[in-house]
Amino acid sequence: MKDLTGLFNPRGVAVIGASSQEGKLGYIVTDNLRTCGYKGNVYPINIKADGDILGFPAYKSVLDIPTDDCDLAVIAIPSRFANASLEECGQKGIKNVIVLTAGFNEVGGEGTKLEEELQEIAKKYDINVQGPNCLGSLDAHTPLNASFAQIMPKPGNIAFVSQSGAMTVAIIDWSVSEGIGFSKVVSLGNKADISEIDVIEELADDDKTDVILGYLEGISEGERFLEVMKKVTQKKPVILLKSGSSQAGAKAVSSHTGALAGNDFAFDAAFENCGVMRAKSMQDLFDLGTAFSKSELPHGRNIAVITNAGGGGVLTADKIEDEELVLAELTDETMAKLREVIPEEGSVYNPIDVLGDASPEGYEKTLEIVLAEDYIDSAIIMACPTASYKPKEVGEAIVEAKNKFNKPIMVVNMGGPTFVEENKVLRENNIPTFVFPETAVKALKGMEVYSEIKEKSKESAVDNLDGIDKEEATKIIESVKESGKDALIGSEAYQVAKAYGISAAPIVLATTKEEAGQAADDMQYPVVLKIASDKILHKTDIGGVQVNINSREEVEEKFEEIIARAKEAHPDIVPDGVEVQKMMPKGQEVLIGMLRDAQFGPIIGFGMGGIYVNLINDVNFKLGAGITDEAIEEQINSTKVSKLLEGYRGDAPCDIEAVKDTLKRVTRLTLDFPEIKELDINPVFCYEEGSSALDIKIKL
Amino acid sequence: MKDLTGLFNPRGVAVIGASSQEGKLGYIVTDNLRTCGYKGNVYPINIKADGDILGFPAYKSVLDIPTDDCDLAVIAIPSRFANASLEECGQKGIKNVIVLTAGFNEVGGEGTKLEEELQEIAKKYDINVQGPNCLGSLDAHTPLNASFAQIMPKPGNIAFVSQSGAMTVAIIDWSVSEGIGFSKVVSLGNKADISEIDVIEELADDDKTDVILGYLEGISEGERFLEVMKKVTQKKPVILLKSGSSQAGAKAVSSHTGALAGNDFAFDAAFENCGVMRAKSMQDLFDLGTAFSKSELPHGRNIAVITNAGGGGVLTADKIEDEELVLAELTDETMAKLREVIPEEGSVYNPIDVLGDASPEGYEKTLEIVLAEDYIDSAIIMACPTASYKPKEVGEAIVEAKNKFNKPIMVVNMGGPTFVEENKVLRENNIPTFVFPETAVKALKGMEVYSEIKEKSKESAVDNLDGIDKEEATKIIESVKESGKDALIGSEAYQVAKAYGISAAPIVLATTKEEAGQAADDMQYPVVLKIASDKILHKTDIGGVQVNINSREEVEEKFEEIIARAKEAHPDIVPDGVEVQKMMPKGQEVLIGMLRDAQFGPIIGFGMGGIYVNLINDVNFKLGAGITDEAIEEQINSTKVSKLLEGYRGDAPCDIEAVKDTLKRVTRLTLDFPEIKELDINPVFCYEEGSSALDIKIKL
Repeated sequence: MKDLTGLFNPRGVAVIGASSQEGKLGYIVTDNLRTCGYKGNVYPINIKADGDILGFPAYKSVLDIPTDDCDLAVIAIPSRFANASLEECGQKGIKNVIVLTAGFNEVGGEGTKLEEELQEIAKKYDINVQGPNCLGSLDAHTPLNASFAQIMPKPGNIAFVSQSGAMTVAIIDWSVSEGIGFSKVVSLGNKADISEIDVIEELADDDKTDVILGYLEGISEGERFLEVMKKVTQKKPVILLKSGSSQAGAKAVSSHTGALAGNDFAFDAAFENCGVMRAKSMQDLFDLGTAFSKSELPHGRNIAVITNAGGGGVLTADKIEDEELVLAELTDETMAKLREVIPEEGSVYNPIDVLGDASPEGYEKTLEIVLAEDYIDSAIIMACPTASYKPKEVGEAIVEAKNKFNKPIMVVNMGGPTFVEENKVLRENNIPTFVFPETAVKALKGMEVYSEIKEKSKESAVDNLDGIDKEEATKIIESVKESGKDALIGSEAYQVAKAYGISAAPIVLATTKEEAGQAADDMQYPVVLKIASDKILHKTDIGGVQVNINSREEVEEKFEEIIARAKEAHPDIVPDGVEVQKMMPKGQEVLIGMLRDAQFGPIIGFGMGGIYVNLINDVNFKLGAGITDEAIEEQINSTKVSKLLEGYRGDAPCDIEAVKDTLKRVTRLTLDFPEIKELDINPVFCYEEGSSALDIKIKL
Repeated sequence: MKDLTGLFNPRGVAVIGASSQEGKLGYIVTDNLRTCGYKGNVYPINIKADGDILGFPAYKSVLDIPTDDCDLAVIAIPSRFANASLEECGQKGIKNVIVLTAGFNEVGGEGTKLEEELQEIAKKYDINVQGPNCLGSLDAHTPLNASFAQIMPKPGNIAFVSQSGAMTVAIIDWSVSEGIGFSKVVSLGNKADISEIDVIEELADDDKTDVILGYLEGISEGERFLEVMKKVTQKKPVILLKSGSSQAGAKAVSSHTGALAGNDFAFDAAFENCGVMRAKSMQDLFDLGTAFSKSELPHGRNIAVITNAGGGGVLTADKIEDEELVLAELTDETMAKLREVIPEEGSVYNPIDVLGDASPEGYEKTLEIVLAEDYIDSAIIMACPTASYKPKEVGEAIVEAKNKFNKPIMVVNMGGPTFVEENKVLRENNIPTFVFPETAVKALKGMEVYSEIKEKSKESAVDNLDGIDKEEATKIIESVKESGKDALIGSEAYQVAKAYGISAAPIVLATTKEEAGQAADDMQYPVVLKIASDKILHKTDIGGVQVNINSREEVEEKFEEIIARAKEAHPDIVPDGVEVQKMMPKGQEVLIGMLRDAQFGPIIGFGMGGIYVNLINDVNFKLGAGITDEAIEEQINSTKVSKLLEGYRGDAPCDIEAVKDTLKRVTRLTLDFPEIKELDINPVFCYEEGSSALDIKIKL
């Protein structure tokens, strides 16, 4: 783990390329350090230095700085000179360097070389390098503005990490008008050294940061990302907006920063796996972030809605259902208590309608009654402006009630000027406010999801499987590789599956009719015969498949028939022989598959099998690495075919444990053999007892 | 069509219940009329009137008003006195009355009676009554504030109609801080007389209104709604937020205003049918409304994105794909032109990156190049704040370029204070501005959808079907009704289908084995026999179904067997006989069904058939009334089963024309017979030529 203390709270900062000339990058950075309230020493560095720059004594090189307190240098000179300066930083013992300059890997060619050189120097001197091609860093608490953003954000408890510098300025600018405060804002740039993982790891232990937001275009180290995020998300919510999710977007990403945009569903699976929440849009990211930054987490999905207008209550109820939260059903006891404080024309059913002329005390009492109930996990309070509504007093009453209970409250004040003062009171007291109910409900949903993430088990379900013969599988796969093939034939795939304890229909490759007969006798009848050749694609069409064979004589006869037909259809192809497969009774068809993501490894798919898989599209994907029993359960239950497995309309239920076992073993296999690029079992037949993989395709 | 001119632009207004006492409803309304800039006469009415009220001469009754220019009265006295005042308004010849007072139908009992009385008086004197239990009306252009909302909205071209008074104030309050202007704002209340339909019909011809927004909890006259909206949406976009879409929400609606919350998918189908756009949230409603209020419509889905920061371009591209719009692929010619104005480090691919230091002229030229291309339908211009960015000048440059072309432009300015001035310039010049790209893309999508709505054919596909014998169908349905049954047996349903030209497998009810044999001979073999009784539910379980019968002898034998088994299983039930059905060859299974909505009539479902319909859930619903060929095409194409019908993976395609024909005939049948409550055909077998409805269930 990198120590980034000096990046955010340095004793002294050098600005390499500092300038007195307004508008220059080196001017802006020096000026930002001068005006942001930073209390350490500032050392302007300029090769032509002569006297002061912006009131600070300037030096020709960092090597000339007379003290040893310089923990951070900001490089703002053209890329071709940057590495020499970085080298000097190393010699001076400066451990943190921000390279603002562009002209590195993002431009390719010479720039890529410069960036490689930069990485070598960083390694040699053990320097944390942020960038190049970035905006810099800001710490609103230190305070420190080591960036060329000319606005300092308000101090707060949200950290924001961004791969796009422009987006970073945009967000700071926007935060000013929204009243959003930040702890740290970090622009990553090309991530030559410091990545989002390093920064987020540091932020996990930062006591000024309660929630971590990020905008990313790609992730460089998948495995480390997962490992670190699993730990961080146990401490604080991490919410990321990952762009480039569309085909069109992915194109723009690669032309933009050269980041390798991963496969989008791989990101979904990976984020889920390590507890990172994925925002769908910038607005989403900050709505969620703001809610997290203010409110405690709910401990369940039951919401009480208190409104002074029926219409608003209805809209909120709609949204609660959309988000799969629960509009709490109030007990008679609760309703009786509410009746005492709500007039007869009001409603004590949830949404609770306190009416347009409700007093601040009415709000307070109502809120206290519902928050006191164990079965209510959170409350949404809505108001429309009415003639008798007292905004500030209602705000104070809500704060009063809220302070007595440790439950999240979201306030929806539908309107503008009427609520300015009330919203201020609420926000100062860590109660999130919204204009429309839908945003409040979405925020609450996000918080509930995070609350569930924290409670989920972390134990891998595929670490201690019995009956796995890795050596045997290695032997088969190695021999396929040696033969120069990039796919296993059926009998080889069966052998691999068998070595991993995957229940499958036996397949044996026979090169003579006697071998075929013996194999059929061994596996018992009925059997299927199939021409074995990776060069013959439409096996059925040429009569290369024969099903339902019930005797040795028939096997031998069909063997010759198949060979003859193959020769007739493809005189130039020498088949490997004929595969004999045990014919299994039909079961419920499911599909188990694997696609390997370059960054996150195997992504396991499960869903409805059969010939219409693409059409029905009932497949759910999970990340293989570190998959838990809970996640496997979720994966199965999220598909439509799970309803068939459970026994649809009176059918006998299938052996779901057997399905899970197969899923786990396939995951283990694809984790153990990175050379397996794709795996596809369709169908797996599921029975009342056990299951059987029929058609196993493994590509290397 | 009601004439509502006097409601929005009255020569004089009477306030019944006017008061000098601050805080009273009658004070607020009178004061609003006094201060809103209204130029007509104001007549305060108070039974205790003596001299002036708020500077206007007051009268004891509207009958005492000395002039005849009073076109509008606002009633603000308790409900028990309201009707007497309404009666006086009638006598005075006042044609428009707003009843603000609550205590009518929404409270039930006595209130419902009062509302009925009110309706009678309105009818007797031909008065347009708005409300009761409403907030009133505002017209920002007249100007007129005949409501108890104490803020007057800015004049604009958006009309807002709302069923909730509280929501109306909330929206006006909010619009002030958002800078949104309104033409008219109308609170509907209980809709005792004037409904959303009347108001929207009036707004269609209002030259101050360009877009109509509404918040509704229910619709009272389905058929008229459809008829009127079809016309209005050809003139102006109508965007409605219909609440109560959730189960929980529907509960809240009924406890709130007593409005009958329709079935939610019925609203989707109905809105689609008449071209009304449905907003998903308040934010959505106004994002769309604002975009429509400012911009022309796009004529296609191809968008050019111009950005000064790569990250923003990626986010926009993602969203464009999500919304099924198109990131226009630029031609070499366009890119060559762009290259002349964009520096080398920028991107001339779409998203076009003009770089952080782009000048206002750079923006203008780039925009002009793309807007000039015929294949580009709209543009999104994005900016992040950079040091050299000149907000106001860029804004002016955009306006300049925009004025030369008749294409929609959305501006996304990511940030806060930096863009305040630019956004003002843009909005004043009718260019919508947004903070984040996702909202801009959503707005553009909405506009494109509306543009397509306007171009869609309006011709009913079910008006001129040949071969329909309504008389015959009437005869069968009448006889079923007479017998007191609420469902047709198979042979009856077949007769009805046949009368409507629906291709179906013949079914004949036989009461003797000879009849059964004769029927089988007539329809030719193979046939199926089924016990006929609406009291026996699990026919297969008791051996009441026999398939694949190939001869007359077998028919007669199985007839007796089935009767015997039914008697054995249900000694108390006398079956109607045995149904003989022609056994059809298996085809691709689809489902055609109908659910009747109380307000909008038949809703026709189409999708994948078979035993897993509920599990697969591949059914699309359309409104039956006025369905077009285009809509039927869309309905079929939106299902997964359409891929099977087209010939999946080399299968022969099915006769889709036959499927359409069946859909049309089912629609016609359910339109012609409102007594058919539910209809369900599952499966319809689809063949290479023709189709055959197998299991037709009709409930009355």
